[in-house]
Amino acid sequence: MTVQSVTVLGAGSWGTTFAKVLADAGRDVTMWARRPEVAAEIREEHTNNGYLPGVVLPGRVTATDDAALALDGAQAVVLAVPSQSLRANLTAWRSLLPREAILVSLAKGVELGTLKRMSEVIGEIAGVRSDDVVVVSGPNLAKEIARQQPAAAVFACADHDKAVAVQQASFNSYFRPYTNTDVVGCELGGACKNVIALSCGMAAGLGFGANTMATLITRGLAETARLGSKLGADPLTFAGLAGVGDLVATCASPLSRNRTFGELLGRGETVAMAQQAVGGQVAEGVMSCQSIRELARGVGVDMPITDAMFRVCHEGMNPARVGAELLGRQQKHEWS
Amino acid sequence: MTVQSVTVLGAGSWGTTFAKVLADAGRDVTMWARRPEVAAEIREEHTNNGYLPGVVLPGRVTATDDAALALDGAQAVVLAVPSQSLRANLTAWRSLLPREAILVSLAKGVELGTLKRMSEVIGEIAGVRSDDVVVVSGPNLAKEIARQQPAAAVFACADHDKAVAVQQASFNSYFRPYTNTDVVGCELGGACKNVIALSCGMAAGLGFGANTMATLITRGLAETARLGSKLGADPLTFAGLAGVGDLVATCASPLSRNRTFGELLGRGETVAMAQQAVGGQVAEGVMSCQSIRELARGVGVDMPITDAMFRVCHEGMNPARVGAELLGRQQKHEWS
Repeated sequence: MTVQSVTVLGAGSWGTTFAKVLADAGRDVTMWARRPEVAAEIREEHTNNGYLPGVVLPGRVTATDDAALALDGAQAVVLAVPSQSLRANLTAWRSLLPREAILVSLAKGVELGTLKRMSEVIGEIAGVRSDDVVVVSGPNLAKEIARQQPAAAVFACADHDKAVAVQQASFNSYFRPYTNTDVVGCELGGACKNVIALSCGMAAGLGFGANTMATLITRGLAETARLGSKLGADPLTFAGLAGVGDLVATCASPLSRNRTFGELLGRGETVAMAQQAVGGQVAEGVMSCQSIRELARGVGVDMPITDAMFRVCHEGMNPARVGAELLGRQQKHEWS
Repeated sequence: MTVQSVTVLGAGSWGTTFAKVLADAGRDVTMWARRPEVAAEIREEHTNNGYLPGVVLPGRVTATDDAALALDGAQAVVLAVPSQSLRANLTAWRSLLPREAILVSLAKGVELGTLKRMSEVIGEIAGVRSDDVVVVSGPNLAKEIARQQPAAAVFACADHDKAVAVQQASFNSYFRPYTNTDVVGCELGGACKNVIALSCGMAAGLGFGANTMATLITRGLAETARLGSKLGADPLTFAGLAGVGDLVATCASPLSRNRTFGELLGRGETVAMAQQAVGGQVAEGVMSCQSIRELARGVGVDMPITDAMFRVCHEGMNPARVGAELLGRQQKHEWS
């Protein structure tokens, strides 16, 4: 299975960066951008300054705002739109997807309402088995990869050959993809990390240091692993790039939207105020804490950090109370 | 098993902080300090400004420079001296240890030459089973805990009752200890994290961002887990507080000596120059990369990051070459 021609649907910072990664690995890449002026900028200037200021895209990347044109002849289709709008977007593209193309998901989240993972949404809408979808995860802050800093990623697919095909298509001098067959674990790791990043930001906003952040990351991974195990994931996945790797990159970076949003909440701002401060968009973790909490409740898994984030974001609980409450839980063995 | 009277041997920042934790949990604590003036400052001023400026110690903490006096009547003895000098120190104290006292280790490292873990060194010198030693690990930057910021820790002992006794003796409003029975895993996690922190610092010194740090942390944990599994540890331990927790706190904090040391190397300084810049002391990771590398070689485990740190620190390899070399390894499945 060789992939030479790839279409990337979505021209945000991660979609654009992933297009660059593929082109730098020698692939021919066509991007679809919703706004014609963004498509024209990518096609003619080889930049996408709204998302990746200062980055020059390789000549092998072209772009259009016409989805039919973008998808024509694609051997792999990369879905790079936000998780909560993936269903609506993909519904519009469904009839344009080439029959044999490998579908690749960059979206991280659990859909509100349906509580489905992204590969499940893709499978349902595109009419393929969700086992055939390749999920990309890992410590992948777009702006750093766009600057060609060394990074590793995980490409997960139940069909190992498909993961390998996309791995081969994107391996280059600064991007090192590993394969994995645990799609459930990789997707849950990606979705839950936004919630944990929110909690890390909140702790920073309350004035706490690296111990507290490390503890939230570790206990956050533990609750993610509890949920994952219950839903069929391999617990080992959460110790890897799509678990601790993704989480550490997000929580350690000043570039992360979820961390920044949490920091504002920790300093005493309301969700509405924080939303305004970051330019109108609510952080993914604010939505995910709701869907993940429901998912966990449905299978009887205790997720104290996710629960606390839900109460802060959706029930107006004071962030300062969270720390005391989480610390006050019963003394026990680390894994009980 | 109730522990009320505790002796802490060593008055560095972690020993002093741990004494404060115990006292804040209602225990009577006697510290031993090598220098009489430090013992006097703790006893009379309730401070240890050389290590913890601005922190006031509870009245329940007293101190002496007389080890016999310090150890008299202790129900638990906390060893808080650097790992490479633990053998020499403990040899001097051996005859003074109360027969029934629980021995607690705060030291993190693998002894050069013997390649023994700290509980093994303690068992050998104190004439007890190393299974009876309680090992303390976790995301525990002393200066943050001394400021009473919330933190979790792991107390590991093959004898679970001993771990619980020390857990009960130290649980307070800001310090949350968990028990664990995997001593090998907790000790190796603590020793290896210094080497990984060195590599994270080096990457920062070379100008790399959060993705690279997260990747080094994740792959560093993976090589630690490979070594640990081979030596009888539970791989799950490395996903917990004594693994990822400790590692993230150290790598994320500007307070970490190993990270700072690595950063200087990444900026092009030699080990000797970096040593001078941090006040004459070489970072623990510089020594540990040698003993851990030998330990790994002895059991046939591949540890590429540790190996790279050894070559930079002891064979003069250029740090800039490390990144390229680590990325260039064969493409594979994440856990193969």
